[in-house]
Amino acid sequence: MRRIPEATIRRLTHYLRCIEFIKETGATILQSRELAAFCSISDSLVRRDLSYFGEFGTKGVGYSIDELEKHIKKILGIDRIKKVGLAGVGNIGSALLKFPLRRNGFHIVAAFDIKEELVGREINGIPIYHEKDIPRIFKEKGLEIGIIAVPQNVAGDVAEKMIEGGAKGILSFALLQCPLSRKIPVRYIEIAAELEILSYEIEKED
Amino acid sequence: MRRIPEATIRRLTHYLRCIEFIKETGATILQSRELAAFCSISDSLVRRDLSYFGEFGTKGVGYSIDELEKHIKKILGIDRIKKVGLAGVGNIGSALLKFPLRRNGFHIVAAFDIKEELVGREINGIPIYHEKDIPRIFKEKGLEIGIIAVPQNVAGDVAEKMIEGGAKGILSFALLQCPLSRKIPVRYIEIAAELEILSYEIEKED
Repeated sequence: MRRIPEATIRRLTHYLRCIEFIKETGATILQSRELAAFCSISDSLVRRDLSYFGEFGTKGVGYSIDELEKHIKKILGIDRIKKVGLAGVGNIGSALLKFPLRRNGFHIVAAFDIKEELVGREINGIPIYHEKDIPRIFKEKGLEIGIIAVPQNVAGDVAEKMIEGGAKGILSFALLQCPLSRKIPVRYIEIAAELEILSYEIEKED
Repeated sequence: MRRIPEATIRRLTHYLRCIEFIKETGATILQSRELAAFCSISDSLVRRDLSYFGEFGTKGVGYSIDELEKHIKKILGIDRIKKVGLAGVGNIGSALLKFPLRRNGFHIVAAFDIKEELVGREINGIPIYHEKDIPRIFKEKGLEIGIIAVPQNVAGDVAEKMIEGGAKGILSFALLQCPLSRKIPVRYIEIAAELEILSYEIEKED
């Protein structure tokens, strides 16, 4: 497949949000201008994004919502369920265990922590194991994605354990401080950093 | 000030993470190569980033940690406390109320929800008001930043209320579907989208 810019891929995820939203109204057909309005972008950009992946709308009629959803999910690789393991059952970690990610095709099937009082318990039906068991549980359960919500000073160790267990990608709330032993895709969600960048943007406006 | 690329600003936030980390060891001097190793980037990139903002290291000696911290915080506009209001006390929202953002200079001083059973309560010492009071409380308490953790279908309304109350910037966990009535900086943290983009990157590797 040819190289697709990340901005396009991100917009595809926004189109999915729009589809989820519109589906609740019972609609079955979606116009590119509805997607455009939802995402506050131009109609032509939506059509360009979608044409990237071949023709799948009918001119003048619009897109079948089901087909569009199926198509976008296929591009994003979420046309099948991806199993996820989450390390760090603190404030953010436990919020994620209750977050409706299942709807998006991501099933958190195991959580990990080092606190003995958490190990053996369940949150939202998801069992909590000890972090030392990450490689074994990742292998046994075929977990593909690791979410890291542990403190920064142990995040690198946890990432290595996930890779040892066969993780294909990592989403981390903590900055991983060293290059990983094996290169897999890593994405970050940095709450403090986003606020700091926002602060910079606010000061710049003044 | 001249235009600074977002990637540079993001690295500044990473340098702050490194400083927080190193400070705990009791060190007072930091070398650019320590920052480089921490962030898995090159020494020369660190030096280039920092020289952007004038000379404040001593060649061969390194940077005074306190001075470096002060300097970066000033650039990011977090050399003074920024007051934050958070809307949506669900799983993610309540996790954020317990998150140590104070350490980073962001004080969440008010939370908002529509659930009557939450209004009037406190989480982590932060009072919860009704969402209809957002404009008033933002004005009264001088809140500069709004964090949005409400469901997507009401996120736009909440953003408008924050702007009405004088918010200068917004960090949103939900996609805002319409252009805002007044243009202020908005940043997004999209958990589902990040997982979807990660999934795309994993499939692409195969």
